[in-house]
Amino acid sequence: MTLVLGGARSGKSRYAESLIEARPGPWRYVATAQAWDDEMRERIAHHRARRAPPWETVDAPRDLPAVIRQAPAGRPVLVDCLTLWLTNAMLDEAADLAAETDALVEACRSAAGPLVLVSNEVGFGIVPENALARRFRDEAGRLHQRLATTADRVVLVVAGLPVTIKGDA
Amino acid sequence: MTLVLGGARSGKSRYAESLIEARPGPWRYVATAQAWDDEMRERIAHHRARRAPPWETVDAPRDLPAVIRQAPAGRPVLVDCLTLWLTNAMLDEAADLAAETDALVEACRSAAGPLVLVSNEVGFGIVPENALARRFRDEAGRLHQRLATTADRVVLVVAGLPVTIKGDA
Amino acid sequence: MTLVLGGARSGKSRYAESLIEARPGPWRYVATAQAWDDEMRERIAHHRARRAPPWETVDAPRDLPAVIRQAPAGRPVLVDCLTLWLTNAMLDEAADLAAETDALVEACRSAAGPLVLVSNEVGFGIVPENALARRFRDEAGRLHQRLATTADRVVLVVAGLPVTIKGDA
Repeated sequence: MTLVLGGARSGKSRYAESLIEARPGPWRYVATAQAWDDEMRERIAHHRARRAPPWETVDAPRDLPAVIRQAPAGRPVLVDCLTLWLTNAMLDEAADLAAETDALVEACRSAAGPLVLVSNEVGFGIVPENALARRFRDEAGRLHQRLATTADRVVLVVAGLPVTIKGDA
Repeated sequence: MTLVLGGARSGKSRYAESLIEARPGPWRYVATAQAWDDEMRERIAHHRARRAPPWETVDAPRDLPAVIRQAPAGRPVLVDCLTLWLTNAMLDEAADLAAETDALVEACRSAAGPLVLVSNEVGFGIVPENALARRFRDEAGRLHQRLATTADRVVLVVAGLPVTIKGDA
Repeated sequence: MTLVLGGARSGKSRYAESLIEARPGPWRYVATAQAWDDEMRERIAHHRARRAPPWETVDAPRDLPAVIRQAPAGRPVLVDCLTLWLTNAMLDEAADLAAETDALVEACRSAAGPLVLVSNEVGFGIVPENALARRFRDEAGRLHQRLATTADRVVLVVAGLPVTIKGDA
């Protein structure tokens, strides 16, 4: 399992795709985006435009652990991205966030094939004035720590360049 | 002296504690938090819950240089964190910030025992709209640069993982 | 060509200057700041105070590609910083941003002498609430990726310390 962290427009998705594409296809792309507004729809379109068969796309804005568990054994899986999944879970008032993140960590730990997770590193700015943004930052940071412990490899992408912070470069 | 930088919920405190706990105790924990509100009280409680003897806790929300100087020779000292101390100093209108940061850098430079300083890296976001936040970001950046020059080791913690940027990994 | 990225008050300008000053002078400093207000005037003064001959200063708040192309062959050139140039271009409603960034990338690629570019890494925070800030973050991220592909060396400055992420340390 590889965790790919990066800032906004850091090239983290493209780098994560290159890791998957280095293996024999088909490759499974797990999209977590929910198209709430035009800006998001545009970003989704931008990402989709880069993928064609042998990529197969599965949407998982909410039940990400199940989608990871259901991938065929040996199938390379790219999850892009955890940040959006976490946002969706936090905005769902009926959700049990602790239980969901536990389930996600467990699904990643026992994935049957190569798994690459993409997520935004969001903790290097000034404390946000917005309370939800502060909570999001805390939850994202904790989730990254848990996944980094389990991951074989953790990479921080800066300006499109991978900086390996765990595992082999 | 080791400077441990990291984002919010990056695991920087836990990593800094592990550096201190690798040495024989007792260990001195210098807490700089001031409980202004419930959110801060909760964070303080979360941090305290991880510490028991041989940890001894000294509060230093304002006079941090003196507390560092007064530590018994050889006693490992963890300061968590500089960000809160700097915030407290900036919110104190009677403070001479330049004199206080000079005193802090000097106290760290001449510390009698192992010293680990924890601080938030806050400069990697968009320019804040709030003028105080911009000033805080500038002061924090300058303080980190000065301490990094003096430090034997500087570590950036990302997702709980230490990235050594000065000294031995 | 070297791309020097860093956060606010990270010491990136000083580090970039040291790269240029390691070569024989004169050295050309290309300043992109536009003095919109007192805070900016103060920052410009702070930066200028560190430069004297053999530094020569050329202002390029808008036509940066031309200024890079016009540098005498072999003259070491420091551009400080891309972030301000991009801000100026985005605030100019008559500008064709895509054409200007293409021209900038091309001018950097074919620079006749050593070229050091300084820019702020701004993508590691929470998604800004301000739409212009979000767009700026996206444009800056894309520009950094393009320049990083071309650059011989890319460095991330943290607390005044260079972390090499491409090329020789």
